[in-house]
Amino acid sequence: MTKISGKSVYEGIALGKILVLQKTEQMIRRRKIEDPKKELVRLQKAVDQSQKELRQLYEKAAKEAGENEAAIFEVHQMMLEDDDYRESIEDMIRKENLNAEYAVNIVCDRFYKIFDEMDDEYMRARAADIRDISDRLTRNLTGHGENDYEIKEPSIIIADDLSPSETIQMDQSKVLAFVTVHGSMNSHTAILARTMNIPALIQVPVELSNLQNGTMAVVDGEKGELILNPDEETSRRAAKKIEQEREKLQLLQEQKGKESITADGKKVHVYANIGSVSDVDFALDNDADGIGLFRSEFLYLGREDFPTEEEQYQAYREVLERMNGKKVVIRTLDIGADKQADYFNLPEEENPALGYRAIRICLRQPDIFKTQLRALLRAAVHGCLAVMYPMITSADEIRRIQKIVNEVKEELDREHAAYQVPEQGIMIETPAAALISDRLAPLVEFFSIGTNDLTQYTLAIDRRSEILDEFYNPHHEAVLRMIRMVMDNAHKAGIWAGICGELAADVTLTEEFVRMGADELSVAPSSVLKVRKEIRMAHALMDISSKYDL
Amino acid sequence: MTKISGKSVYEGIALGKILVLQKTEQMIRRRKIEDPKKELVRLQKAVDQSQKELRQLYEKAAKEAGENEAAIFEVHQMMLEDDDYRESIEDMIRKENLNAEYAVNIVCDRFYKIFDEMDDEYMRARAADIRDISDRLTRNLTGHGENDYEIKEPSIIIADDLSPSETIQMDQSKVLAFVTVHGSMNSHTAILARTMNIPALIQVPVELSNLQNGTMAVVDGEKGELILNPDEETSRRAAKKIEQEREKLQLLQEQKGKESITADGKKVHVYANIGSVSDVDFALDNDADGIGLFRSEFLYLGREDFPTEEEQYQAYREVLERMNGKKVVIRTLDIGADKQADYFNLPEEENPALGYRAIRICLRQPDIFKTQLRALLRAAVHGCLAVMYPMITSADEIRRIQKIVNEVKEELDREHAAYQVPEQGIMIETPAAALISDRLAPLVEFFSIGTNDLTQYTLAIDRRSEILDEFYNPHHEAVLRMIRMVMDNAHKAGIWAGICGELAADVTLTEEFVRMGADELSVAPSSVLKVRKEIRMAHALMDISSKYDL
Repeated sequence: MTKISGKSVYEGIALGKILVLQKTEQMIRRRKIEDPKKELVRLQKAVDQSQKELRQLYEKAAKEAGENEAAIFEVHQMMLEDDDYRESIEDMIRKENLNAEYAVNIVCDRFYKIFDEMDDEYMRARAADIRDISDRLTRNLTGHGENDYEIKEPSIIIADDLSPSETIQMDQSKVLAFVTVHGSMNSHTAILARTMNIPALIQVPVELSNLQNGTMAVVDGEKGELILNPDEETSRRAAKKIEQEREKLQLLQEQKGKESITADGKKVHVYANIGSVSDVDFALDNDADGIGLFRSEFLYLGREDFPTEEEQYQAYREVLERMNGKKVVIRTLDIGADKQADYFNLPEEENPALGYRAIRICLRQPDIFKTQLRALLRAAVHGCLAVMYPMITSADEIRRIQKIVNEVKEELDREHAAYQVPEQGIMIETPAAALISDRLAPLVEFFSIGTNDLTQYTLAIDRRSEILDEFYNPHHEAVLRMIRMVMDNAHKAGIWAGICGELAADVTLTEEFVRMGADELSVAPSSVLKVRKEIRMAHALMDISSKYDL
Repeated sequence: MTKISGKSVYEGIALGKILVLQKTEQMIRRRKIEDPKKELVRLQKAVDQSQKELRQLYEKAAKEAGENEAAIFEVHQMMLEDDDYRESIEDMIRKENLNAEYAVNIVCDRFYKIFDEMDDEYMRARAADIRDISDRLTRNLTGHGENDYEIKEPSIIIADDLSPSETIQMDQSKVLAFVTVHGSMNSHTAILARTMNIPALIQVPVELSNLQNGTMAVVDGEKGELILNPDEETSRRAAKKIEQEREKLQLLQEQKGKESITADGKKVHVYANIGSVSDVDFALDNDADGIGLFRSEFLYLGREDFPTEEEQYQAYREVLERMNGKKVVIRTLDIGADKQADYFNLPEEENPALGYRAIRICLRQPDIFKTQLRALLRAAVHGCLAVMYPMITSADEIRRIQKIVNEVKEELDREHAAYQVPEQGIMIETPAAALISDRLAPLVEFFSIGTNDLTQYTLAIDRRSEILDEFYNPHHEAVLRMIRMVMDNAHKAGIWAGICGELAADVTLTEEFVRMGADELSVAPSSVLKVRKEIRMAHALMDISSKYDL
């Protein structure tokens, strides 16, 4: 039995045989060619074939993991058409009479280096993407075709690293777990693993050539360990844990169809957070009472220009219709900070999290905002829509929003368009909004507390920063006191208040939130039943004050 | 009369003749040399002469503008010795037999480009520094000597741009104002202008060659305007304003020697914020009741390695002795975010303001912290010292600090060193600390509210971001409510509380702060008398509650 420690990406557990994926390095030879024109035609064919493959991968990913996760293959398609990249390759062929494979590889190395040395984590991650598309191009030039990712029996997949295209091509029903020697917590593969609930470890220092396919192993996502040749006791315990997890999931299934209501009779809506139209299935599968946070960014990311009003209208309408009368809270555009789209031409900022993002962009560039509002107001007639505005810090911002909404109404009136004004609320995700929630409550119809950003700003800690882990406390009393304050101020003004950050799914706090007066908890679809179960056991005890009163 | 708009760096007003500084471009010829060794000797001589000049500039700047502002010339000295820079020049001389002037200029262009294209604003500003040191080197190679910055009569200086070395070499008593065609708000020249209270405009689009020395002009720092050939009325109004400013300053002088006490008898200390030992003179000149914020970073910045305990001890001791029994509050190391020193090897961060900085570094690297604490405890015997810890978010952090302080005490006891434990307090500059100030108060001896960071985190707005100006409200009610909350919690626990951010000097809030119960306001030395005047007119009305009660 050998234990090797790595970083856990997803806290599941797996037991089974390993399957080692070792990539065969392609040897690329430098050749002088006679006819650059012919070579350029070869290149174009390989590009076309690659584009075709990427479109297929996009569709597969969208179906299996959601459009948010599939977006990476749209990015790949765009990179493949990038002028700088393509022209550099073509120039080498044309001016230096070099073969296409060689040109692709030289240009790939050059771009890889540029991205890899960038300051920005997001841009650094693009280095892997350049490699991924260049490998694909090379394969299509040499005629080697796609790598073989066929998995014959359920296996623990072990590899040096996995590109998103590799991950998505595997038959996920046969992947027990992913283990990689490299990789980062925020890589696409890690994100895919979490989305698809597959146990995964990264940065596990194993020597791939020493591993034998078929060796039994345990992947312990809780401890972050890969255990090769586990002894009987370890295997037995792993099997038991897997069984317990399965039973727990089954027990949760019993929550389906039940009401989200406390033991003493208070209704607390359990809504789902989603990031794309296809996520709606996931929410319905888990019997969510509604959608508490629909991130509208998916409409804006991974594309080259703004989505039209019609595109947006169709997407919102589809979600509303599929939710069939259940409430859908759509958050208006929250771009900026770690979510970037080139065509917005956002400025580079020293502290993007404290920067030009979300409602700030919408208020300074009202044309973008108006298009979204028009789509939302028009879609509102097709279901139970609520709209919420992110990153609010002042009453003045709300008044500016109201003015723009009124302009949109007047426009739609003039056009005799069918529309309806949806319920409107704000995210409480800055300490400023929490502390003046008594002033804001009379101006809106509901509050939704975004605990991730609220905690980040309250503690002045970027939660993605590993080095600060020891100072980051998601249960910090300051945050809990603000939540209590916001609930109180909402109810004093007669509006409802919910929580839509990660904390909402923390079942150790469910009863406390209920006692604070939360009317709604909005969580990942996979957490809906777990939270409902907790609510059904909780007591609202509405006459007892919270321990987080100031 | 011609009006030209630019950006105001400092809100003063000036009236006088203009003096245009136009740099003569040095023509550098490429020459093949016979003897690279001789050329390297020439280069070394020029480097030595440049270092000598930079040392003199450092001393002049430290004396006239403070050590913080002088640090740039230490940076220049370091850049001149930088291996990459020097070796690139020497290589061109040695391997390509080129003359030193030419090599310096080619290498300068190359480095300029690298810095200028960097992501980071701080690093981009280094491009101007590379040009500055390369120009100096070239001058010393060609024997042209320093440029002539002699100013014969009081003048408004107009230039394309001004390097810090140019600014500091002028006789400031004859500079009525600075006006530059280029330059940025955060350039060293802008900072120097503010520190030395000289009206300054940047980004003023004038054609230097069209200007005539001796032309009359008004620099209006309030409106951000340069007015050439002002008409009689404009000149008269400018002269009157200048006179009013002078009278106001004179009136303030009458506040010297008076007590900082409200009209109804409450003592409110007016302390000064300083950033270097030499700033003490400035604080004493303005009759500050003490030092409320001594930023200890100056000991760490602009150098190549950590300051020793002895260096720190001497600096703290000097300040304490010069303040002669008045209170001196020293803030422990607040490095990170926008204050960087290479030898700390701090990680690159996406949001440095929400990152690894201040007490977080001290707690994770206690050796650095202990050296500073030892120096502080030893210095404490020489005056009235208080120590405050920055960026606190939790009680746990305070307990960790206390443990380290205890270890330092034990060490000093074992060594039979003379020491004293100073009064210890914390900065309240995160919303977390403000919201749990009732929990933190019993653990410390005082609070000092840092309004700049507190506002930045509360509003989630990087205050240096221009694009967000319309959303940034330094008087945001959330911040004022937190200040009130912190004051209350301090007094309930029987400790004192002050304010040391920019808001402390905002006289429109002085009476409100006094009514909230502020025991101390710590402001820039130049604002001490203004704030004292306001306090002496204010009523504490201690039985009336603040309008910022929650």
